[in-house]
Amino acid sequence: MNPTLNVPRNGHLVIIGGHEDRQHDMQILSRFVELAGGPDARIVVITAASQIADEMWHIYDDAFGALGVTRHSHLEITSRDDANDENFVRQVAEADGIFMTGGDQKRLLALIGGTALDAEMHAALKVRGATIGGTSAGASAMSGHMLAQGRTDLLPEKGSVSLGAGLGFLHRVVVDQHFSERQRLSRLLSIVAQNPYLQGIGIDEDTALVIERGVGIEVLGEGAVTVVDGRSMSSNVAEIKDRAIPELIDVRLHLLPAGAKYSLPIGDEQVGRRIPASLLDFLQIVTKRTPLS
Amino acid sequence: MNPTLNVPRNGHLVIIGGHEDRQHDMQILSRFVELAGGPDARIVVITAASQIADEMWHIYDDAFGALGVTRHSHLEITSRDDANDENFVRQVAEADGIFMTGGDQKRLLALIGGTALDAEMHAALKVRGATIGGTSAGASAMSGHMLAQGRTDLLPEKGSVSLGAGLGFLHRVVVDQHFSERQRLSRLLSIVAQNPYLQGIGIDEDTALVIERGVGIEVLGEGAVTVVDGRSMSSNVAEIKDRAIPELIDVRLHLLPAGAKYSLPIGDEQVGRRIPASLLDFLQIVTKRTPLS
Repeated sequence: MNPTLNVPRNGHLVIIGGHEDRQHDMQILSRFVELAGGPDARIVVITAASQIADEMWHIYDDAFGALGVTRHSHLEITSRDDANDENFVRQVAEADGIFMTGGDQKRLLALIGGTALDAEMHAALKVRGATIGGTSAGASAMSGHMLAQGRTDLLPEKGSVSLGAGLGFLHRVVVDQHFSERQRLSRLLSIVAQNPYLQGIGIDEDTALVIERGVGIEVLGEGAVTVVDGRSMSSNVAEIKDRAIPELIDVRLHLLPAGAKYSLPIGDEQVGRRIPASLLDFLQIVTKRTPLS
Repeated sequence: MNPTLNVPRNGHLVIIGGHEDRQHDMQILSRFVELAGGPDARIVVITAASQIADEMWHIYDDAFGALGVTRHSHLEITSRDDANDENFVRQVAEADGIFMTGGDQKRLLALIGGTALDAEMHAALKVRGATIGGTSAGASAMSGHMLAQGRTDLLPEKGSVSLGAGLGFLHRVVVDQHFSERQRLSRLLSIVAQNPYLQGIGIDEDTALVIERGVGIEVLGEGAVTVVDGRSMSSNVAEIKDRAIPELIDVRLHLLPAGAKYSLPIGDEQVGRRIPASLLDFLQIVTKRTPLS
């Protein structure tokens, strides 16, 4: 067994904006495997977001195989009964890495939200320090408030996006994916305009936001992570009609390119360079060690 | 003569994001005419940005004609000699409204930048309180630092946009047009990342930012005006290589939809509702009465 598997781990989230490379450098999947403990890690793949679960599994079976992983398996969940099934739940309880594929995040939540499997995933992350990865729909599903659906318009619009309940591995944020490629800033601004409590996180394709609980974050891959913070904005969104364009003043925007890495200060000491206050606040929110239930 | 022509005027800029309606409601052109003094106003159309000047002139000849304007004429400038020609300069000196069409802002500046015509346009705005309108290239040309050219990439990139010298009717900003339609936020962020002294103004199609010098601003039309303020951002742009994606933290973004209207406080009194500090600052910058030379 890989010795790193016995070291106490903080738990990582690997939140991927879709279309991560699965055949060439596999930078992101390779980091996922490394964080889970290396080739000896036990990795389970949850394809429940997808209606073509078998195809999805074959793609990741090949990718993880190519990365030298031998103990990866398909959790083929097609009903909530499956997601409460002892056998599936035990596989999660023994996993070092749990990977959620793309598809539709509403489908994923409809199948596993609030089940024994969901609870076991939280335990895996928070108690055992496992690594949870998700791409595309699997990325959006990570937050407590989940982008359920929304049009991509040229401009933000009141009422154009709806939220649902996500898995809740992180809170006070909402995750969108395929972000720059599908020009989704206006959709993220629509959410933030109406939900200023939530910071918007937009993740580009073949790009991942890696979060180590209690420690820090890192951006991997080809693109960037965009953060939209409307907590100190002024807006008329409460007064305008549905479908109208809101006035938004003082939205803060951060662009964190691949390669960016930030750690929380340890005690009063900042490791590396000083982090601007608003980013530090973002860091504290996403790395927060939330309790099990 | 229309009586409003004899009232002292502050001078207006009508900065249009391109594709303003010229056949149906003509909301923006109609406001341009109104600000210039109504149907009796003398309006000159500068087509120098375009290589199809005649076609441009016919479009605006029809549009202003349909709005009841009778004294509109084409300033057909094809050389810098034309732009120093007494006859052309006199027409500007007598104009109530000066309208610059689309085309290429570099061509426009190459033909009229620094000429007697340019100086007379400043006098028209600042001494006589005339109205200056510009659409697309004519909008970009308005600021002192002008977006000369730049690719539209998915993400901001160091070195992807170049600035040139514009006409300088307003300063400390840079104007981009066709903004939401051509997904130009990343290009505006590229500029602001490298030029944090400049606030980026992105104007949508069939949308205008109307500025009354010393008084206030208004957004007209169908879309919105996006303001990007990087003055208090943190960025690594000075350290990274050309073509790399910069880290940007704490860029401020304002979205001002059509219908939005803001006035400077008069003395200590705010007309209408209180304006957030950062927008007030933007207002002070764009409405500033800069001196003639």
